Amino acid sequence: MESVEVESDLFARNCGSRQVIDRIGDRWSVLVVLTLADGGKRFTELARRIEGVSQKMLTQTLRGLERDGLVTRTAHATVPPRVDYALTELGRSLLDLVSGLEAWATTHLGEVEAARARYDAR
Amino acid sequence: MESVEVESDLFARNCGSRQVIDRIGDRWSVLVVLTLADGGKRFTELARRIEGVSQKMLTQTLRGLERDGLVTRTAHATVPPRVDYALTELGRSLLDLVSGLEAWATTHLGEVEAARARYDAR
Repeated sequence: MESVEVESDLFARNCGSRQVIDRIGDRWSVLVVLTLADGGKRFTELARRIEGVSQKMLTQTLRGLERDGLVTRTAHATVPPRVDYALTELGRSLLDLVSGLEAWATTHLGEVEAARARYDAR
Repeated sequence: MESVEVESDLFARNCGSRQVIDRIGDRWSVLVVLTLADGGKRFTELARRIEGVSQKMLTQTLRGLERDGLVTRTAHATVPPRVDYALTELGRSLLDLVSGLEAWATTHLGEVEAARARYDAR
């Protein structure tokens, strides 16, 4: 098997890996991936769990995640129609990172809030 | 020392750790943190290195990172004036995560691009 070297410069505007960062460094995408960590969910469950996300924004986020191969969308021909979303294997491979992000945020929240208070008091 | 328990629900709109995710899950912030990994930089160096960022967006991103205690800003009273940015200790604690994000993006770029091509061909 021939190995293919992909040229990659994260800082270049059109670089593919930068486009990947744009996806996984997107707040709603991070929250959707975390919400799907313990199993597939319906659209309405996702909307309820992720406070403050609009229907339009959630639809766009899910479409982006599906396009990137991170999430599958399964429509059931029931009445009323039901649509389920789940992580793909590729999406699951993001979980460690995204959980790491969550853990960092929880651990360092106090420091960040103290820094904000100092900044705002200047 | 009394231990303080912080209630945290990442999915709640006003949760502090969600606001932290909003910062570290921001594309420009990720790129600025990565650019500062190997040492402090001037504003102009950051602007040149991070392709496609506008002066206004870079200013906003740096101000947000400074407010969150992740980056320091040092103004030198030289002619012309010079402003340096560097990671704080808290900012450096993000490097492993952010490098992990970069590594994931580079490793899985091919899979993501293949998924996009399949999606767009539907």
